[in-house]
Amino acid sequence: MAESQLVNTNPMEPCYVRGEHTLRVPMTLFQGNRERLLNRLRKNSDVPTKGAFVMLQGGVDVPFNDTDIDWPFRQESYFQWCFGVEEPGCYGCIDITSGTSILFFPRLPAEYAVWQGKLHSLEDFKKRYAVDETYYTDQIAQVLSDKQAALLLTLYGRNTDSGNTAREAVFDGIGQFQVDNNLLFPEIAECRVIKSSQEIEVLRYVVKISSEAHKAVMRAVKPGLMEYQGESAFLHYAYSVGGCRNVSYTCICGSGHNASILHYGHAGVPNNRLIQDGDICLFDMGANYCGYAADITCSFPANGKFTEDQKMIYNAVLDACNAVLQSVKPGVSWVDMHLLSNKVLLTSLKKGGLLIGDVDDMIKAGLGEVFQPHGLGHLMGLDVHDVGGYLPGCPERPVAPGIRKLRTARTLSAGMVLTVEPGCYFIDCLLDAALANPEQSKFIVPERLRDFRGWGGVRIEDDILITESGVENMTCVPRTVEEIEAWMAVGRDQIKLPQERRRTVE
Amino acid sequence: MAESQLVNTNPMEPCYVRGEHTLRVPMTLFQGNRERLLNRLRKNSDVPTKGAFVMLQGGVDVPFNDTDIDWPFRQESYFQWCFGVEEPGCYGCIDITSGTSILFFPRLPAEYAVWQGKLHSLEDFKKRYAVDETYYTDQIAQVLSDKQAALLLTLYGRNTDSGNTAREAVFDGIGQFQVDNNLLFPEIAECRVIKSSQEIEVLRYVVKISSEAHKAVMRAVKPGLMEYQGESAFLHYAYSVGGCRNVSYTCICGSGHNASILHYGHAGVPNNRLIQDGDICLFDMGANYCGYAADITCSFPANGKFTEDQKMIYNAVLDACNAVLQSVKPGVSWVDMHLLSNKVLLTSLKKGGLLIGDVDDMIKAGLGEVFQPHGLGHLMGLDVHDVGGYLPGCPERPVAPGIRKLRTARTLSAGMVLTVEPGCYFIDCLLDAALANPEQSKFIVPERLRDFRGWGGVRIEDDILITESGVENMTCVPRTVEEIEAWMAVGRDQIKLPQERRRTVE
Repeated sequence: MAESQLVNTNPMEPCYVRGEHTLRVPMTLFQGNRERLLNRLRKNSDVPTKGAFVMLQGGVDVPFNDTDIDWPFRQESYFQWCFGVEEPGCYGCIDITSGTSILFFPRLPAEYAVWQGKLHSLEDFKKRYAVDETYYTDQIAQVLSDKQAALLLTLYGRNTDSGNTAREAVFDGIGQFQVDNNLLFPEIAECRVIKSSQEIEVLRYVVKISSEAHKAVMRAVKPGLMEYQGESAFLHYAYSVGGCRNVSYTCICGSGHNASILHYGHAGVPNNRLIQDGDICLFDMGANYCGYAADITCSFPANGKFTEDQKMIYNAVLDACNAVLQSVKPGVSWVDMHLLSNKVLLTSLKKGGLLIGDVDDMIKAGLGEVFQPHGLGHLMGLDVHDVGGYLPGCPERPVAPGIRKLRTARTLSAGMVLTVEPGCYFIDCLLDAALANPEQSKFIVPERLRDFRGWGGVRIEDDILITESGVENMTCVPRTVEEIEAWMAVGRDQIKLPQERRRTVE
Repeated sequence: MAESQLVNTNPMEPCYVRGEHTLRVPMTLFQGNRERLLNRLRKNSDVPTKGAFVMLQGGVDVPFNDTDIDWPFRQESYFQWCFGVEEPGCYGCIDITSGTSILFFPRLPAEYAVWQGKLHSLEDFKKRYAVDETYYTDQIAQVLSDKQAALLLTLYGRNTDSGNTAREAVFDGIGQFQVDNNLLFPEIAECRVIKSSQEIEVLRYVVKISSEAHKAVMRAVKPGLMEYQGESAFLHYAYSVGGCRNVSYTCICGSGHNASILHYGHAGVPNNRLIQDGDICLFDMGANYCGYAADITCSFPANGKFTEDQKMIYNAVLDACNAVLQSVKPGVSWVDMHLLSNKVLLTSLKKGGLLIGDVDDMIKAGLGEVFQPHGLGHLMGLDVHDVGGYLPGCPERPVAPGIRKLRTARTLSAGMVLTVEPGCYFIDCLLDAALANPEQSKFIVPERLRDFRGWGGVRIEDDILITESGVENMTCVPRTVEEIEAWMAVGRDQIKLPQERRRTVE
């Protein structure tokens, strides 16, 4: 069990906090992350024993197109992991030999104080972020030169979920230094895969707040509301109660057929349907605190009572989820967990009359991917799809149907945080293709399948921590049919619809 | 009076809407915008009478750094103004001679349906956006070639608020066409300055929703809450009741001294202070609907009752606001309105014992900019700081203190929408500079000024439409001291603080 080390924290020590009712995250979390990175780098024989510095560039403000309005700033995740800095436009470096940590801040013109508030001094920033030294960004080359930096390790590597690469540090005068952009990436990404006890506390907090917010939404939803009103209730709870200004990804609030669209909620389909009586709802939403993500899905009947068919599909997915939760532990392959979940799901669909034949044969024929065209889950941390899924030395991405969508194929270790998110969806284009493929259609009972066309889908997504002895499920929401119905039964008569008022541009 | 033309709309016609309780924006709004642009371009003798096409590129998805998570998409404003398209990655063009409107959509792989929902056909898009023709983006060069396009007018011009330039359209094969990037910008920006009756309806709606949301926040705020809990309440109201998924800018929720930070609320100072008894609150927040912005500021005492000093400053700003609202009409210079507002403010501060001497002399000495270091207001539309403030042929940016911060110096015309936002702030660095400057310090009563050090500030911001006969104030919130105290008195005992629970990473 990866117990958190219970150390008394000094309430005056620098921290990230959003009021007394929220979690206090001391800057020692980021100091600890830097220590872990240094320990790895010092063991790497390709890193010189003297004069080598980690050199990172933080995130920058992103404007809406050509305007003077920016998105609310979100720190770049590697930079956040090392330094926890809330401001844009910074650089950070670490002397690998001495461990000295250095932050560089933009030198803002004095008149910025009028618009942005009191300009912090370098001394202020040094205390606030608990680093050894602070300078302005226009001093980077001079500071590194004074420290006789012989090699800068910059970050360059592919994010295997997006295909994009991290922003490699560039600054005025970098040309006078030797730069290596290969060594750092795999080491720091591997560090991010295993969460420290302090990181785990933050993840527990944001998962707890997100769980509570989901519960509030489940009680608020009913037929006659718009899907996005559930999204709005989630955002409000997470922010107002949990201090979470951001979510980790765009909320997915699908009802009815929309519950079968895996990434519903984006601009083309913006949670903009009226929820109907009899709908299944699939709400996938996760808050973000101090950069750390939650990612939870709850599926429930809009009216609070499952139909028999809804119960059958829901329990099929819940059994798959529970099978994984009971089996997952250090040393287990994530691919095997995916296959286990698929097997349990297809077995249940067979019991429910949707499929016939041998379940192992179904899996070989790719039936798993017809009903769940995504992986079992993914690493989670500062990114909701966290880094490190396919690092050098780890198992490569599988090519077989069913498992090729997995965002990692790793063997699990204590300290990993992942989502477990089996699902079952009725997606027309996949069902049509399966019915047209004799190798797959022979397992399908078409007359039973017709009951589920346009029905939507179910996903159950928990956020788990791999512990020394097994697993800790950080998510806490009603999960069984009975729990959901009991939870949703409370106070449903008191839910108010938004004021009735049709308005039209004329 | 720029009366909206009351035309019956067909409820089946394509529109932007977020449920029955929200505003239905028909696509004729964007058709009307295109017509207005064509009318201008056809009068421009530099535009060929045949073969010239307006060519715009829409906005694209913006990821968080290197990850696979995007910000919720927001359409680029010129593209939105012409086409009202909700999806990223599109292009649009208009044949200036025939008026034919053409949209180009990304050709998405079939498997995207699994993740994003049913892929719309070109026919679907044609109906939904009420354009004449639709194609895929890989067909742009071919389509333009078939239409014998001789000149493409692309968008290139500087946003005078940000200094950035709009994204000029680029596509495979553009090299085979003659391109002009000078003609379009001033014409389309000028079109955006004057709002159509349909645009005005949308602006009235988003200002109304934002007004209601401010009122809800004023009732919810009290000492003991965090500033961001006001932000969260605003966001929830605007989204859940108004269907406004976005705000137009990061919410500014300053209490106490923070009320003097003009753009408080950004990442470095994220509305993260506990509101105290006796604080003044300055909350500047505006929702966004169908791309159109609102921008409203309410200032009020956290505990619901003004002190005598708060009343004095508040009324000084309110008098300045009212003086402008009573004077503003077509033909009036915005610079004169700014100066009027300054004069009224300084006169009130003199009455309040903060200043002595002749008010005109104070203005000449730059006292206006000491207490209100920003312009009176700005154009508002699809951008909160809307385009067209300093177009060719309009008055140039003034250089004198007090008015050099104005985002426009134009003479007002019917159909313009602007904010009127006088303020009075006690900003240490500006007060210190004024006290150190004999030309300014001679007007200041230092012992009275000391009462206001750290006091914060007041801004009153209304969204107005210039009409043929004068002005329509679209904002509807409690504005007088009496109105605010009466509004805030209701139900204050029932406001609950967030659950008390300190949490610490240990």
